[in-house]
Amino acid sequence: MPVNLSVPVAAELLPVAGVKLGTAAASIKRPNHKDLLLIQLDDGATVAGVFTSNRFCAAPVTVAREHLASGKGIKALVVNTGNANAGTGEQGMAAARATCAELARLLGCTPEQVLPFSTGVIMEPLPLAKIVAGLPQAIAGLKADNWFDAAHAIMTTDIVAKAVSKQVQIGGKTVTVTGMSKGSGMIHPNMATMLGYIATDAAVAQPLLQQMVKQAADASFNCITVDGDTSTNDALMLIATGGSGVQVDAANSAQLQAAISEVAVLLAQAIVRDGEGATKFITIRVEGGRDLAECRQIGYAIAHSPLVKTAFFASDPNLGRILAAIGYAGVADLDVAGLSLYLDDVLVAEQGGRAASYREEDGQRVMQQSDITIRVVLGRGIASATLWTCDFSYDYVKINASYRS
Amino acid sequence: MPVNLSVPVAAELLPVAGVKLGTAAASIKRPNHKDLLLIQLDDGATVAGVFTSNRFCAAPVTVAREHLASGKGIKALVVNTGNANAGTGEQGMAAARATCAELARLLGCTPEQVLPFSTGVIMEPLPLAKIVAGLPQAIAGLKADNWFDAAHAIMTTDIVAKAVSKQVQIGGKTVTVTGMSKGSGMIHPNMATMLGYIATDAAVAQPLLQQMVKQAADASFNCITVDGDTSTNDALMLIATGGSGVQVDAANSAQLQAAISEVAVLLAQAIVRDGEGATKFITIRVEGGRDLAECRQIGYAIAHSPLVKTAFFASDPNLGRILAAIGYAGVADLDVAGLSLYLDDVLVAEQGGRAASYREEDGQRVMQQSDITIRVVLGRGIASATLWTCDFSYDYVKINASYRS
Repeated sequence: MPVNLSVPVAAELLPVAGVKLGTAAASIKRPNHKDLLLIQLDDGATVAGVFTSNRFCAAPVTVAREHLASGKGIKALVVNTGNANAGTGEQGMAAARATCAELARLLGCTPEQVLPFSTGVIMEPLPLAKIVAGLPQAIAGLKADNWFDAAHAIMTTDIVAKAVSKQVQIGGKTVTVTGMSKGSGMIHPNMATMLGYIATDAAVAQPLLQQMVKQAADASFNCITVDGDTSTNDALMLIATGGSGVQVDAANSAQLQAAISEVAVLLAQAIVRDGEGATKFITIRVEGGRDLAECRQIGYAIAHSPLVKTAFFASDPNLGRILAAIGYAGVADLDVAGLSLYLDDVLVAEQGGRAASYREEDGQRVMQQSDITIRVVLGRGIASATLWTCDFSYDYVKINASYRS
Repeated sequence: MPVNLSVPVAAELLPVAGVKLGTAAASIKRPNHKDLLLIQLDDGATVAGVFTSNRFCAAPVTVAREHLASGKGIKALVVNTGNANAGTGEQGMAAARATCAELARLLGCTPEQVLPFSTGVIMEPLPLAKIVAGLPQAIAGLKADNWFDAAHAIMTTDIVAKAVSKQVQIGGKTVTVTGMSKGSGMIHPNMATMLGYIATDAAVAQPLLQQMVKQAADASFNCITVDGDTSTNDALMLIATGGSGVQVDAANSAQLQAAISEVAVLLAQAIVRDGEGATKFITIRVEGGRDLAECRQIGYAIAHSPLVKTAFFASDPNLGRILAAIGYAGVADLDVAGLSLYLDDVLVAEQGGRAASYREEDGQRVMQQSDITIRVVLGRGIASATLWTCDFSYDYVKINASYRS
């Protein structure tokens, strides 16, 4: 079950002027199940995005990158679940392009003005006809107050839909930021993917918007891991419609950046809280490093260790496993005698061994919690990094061993 | 249960002239259980070793490195299970040194002539008094024909003991190589460690012996992974006694190297076959790479992917997961359209997608086997690498979540 994660309240998801959303049940993988989402943008909206670094990136990722780069004003984003259209070769590229062409025809724009996204099973042909047949239903349902429904339509093995809104005051006017995400592992079982969509009614020129989405991603989706697998389809898109009448440029972008990053962090954390088989939400904070890279390197070594993750599942304060992960993280000149390890506020280890003050029952108490912070103080600099992950349970194996069967 | 791995036959484990082994039940972790091993070497033996790269290396690893570097002739190796003496700070160093000092006193040599090894729980104080008390029993039991017993004394969560012998003819004389190993993950649950000991009765000068152990390790223990965790205590030691009267130098070392590497490969594979919760033994062969590094990088991405490993556990030919792992392995300019993926002899993917000839039932048939080869042909060079790993089962989580409780 998701760890301290509630279903979003529909009334708290604020429409973003200039964005309409429509869904459809296209029977892509199973019938009577919403599996298609259309996001339509008013003229003048700008769109920026960051995509997976996986070399086996999915066809829609390639096409979306191309269309974004074409510089045409984006009019629509279309997302299907149930099939990732990844590892599908030339046929997959053709299917992604055909989806854009058909939607462009229906909306009266060019194919380059459409961005396609897919999530689901890898290496199976995209059922193009079903998607094409579902588009009119999605168009018919387009409305601004539809984020709740949209967040549900992009779910795959997610147990809980993920969406959140924030408002900030900029120049005396209210600017809204609403976002949604899906994913329950960096890769899903064989469902590929993390997807995130954040929209604001501020007006932001595309180059600045691209910087803002990169910064938001680095502070959020690039700080989480469930299983260390990087999906073929990951994408985070940021849309700025200008519908609020508020112009944001480099000089006054701080507040909007903060709101967008906050939304991104909540959406990213929601993916971990809903991680496959998760029973614990673990914050890993590495402080006192020489640079960000070594802090992240140590953080990810801890976050990816199956031994650390199974110990947290068992609520077993078997904390030597964390020391071992720090030790093999690959920071070559790390002096292990100089670091300290905390579990929440409990000092566990220092001077290369167990802290004299450490008592097993204190470790045990923290391990029983559902939200836990591991803090590593390296004592060799001023850099720090925070990552979020979950534990590793029987259910992770169950979900991933049995999904397709 | 171990995958296609039999208990060694005692009579097939050949003594190595110049090596005696003795064991004891020292009640380090539980009573009436052999947990202490002494390996005594005749004068003139040379010893070489490779050790863990973990920065949190255990106290005995630090002491063994120091003693090897001192250049004194090594007279004895002492191994305890039940406690890793890792993450134990200054107290742990003192305990490792005291073990050597006491054994040196009993054997009439200097402490620098003793190499200590420990495996077991991390971050708990070494019960020095129990080890000291157990040494006389181990000394009393010293004999040459004792590898079977010795291989059992170093087991922790291993289900099956691991030992093997080979003989080669060099210059018309018979040279024996006998080795043993322990480990059932790169790290054990919270038992740390892979340990390997190989002895030959050839005479080999220490600098050459060090080259030979490095070469053997690179072809064996450095090609396996169970869970990606690198232990704090890993060590592979190579002993050359000269007891056969055969002198081996750089000019005639090829045969002996081959025998040592073959023993090392069998011992390393045995660790994977006995991997925690393993039900499948998986050989990953990456061919046609530009260099060894990229072949290993791709091989380890596959071998470490929890999604790939759970699919093998389920015998589910969900092979897009392998493509995804290849894609995120970090080979930046990899052209995925140029590679081919095989499962045993079945061509699964080529030209960036599923092979036209691929039939699910063929993949399914191979996935049902207990020994499976994944072959990736990169088509961009002549380098290749072979790794060995196992699948990821409920029992892995069970073993690691419940070990200490």
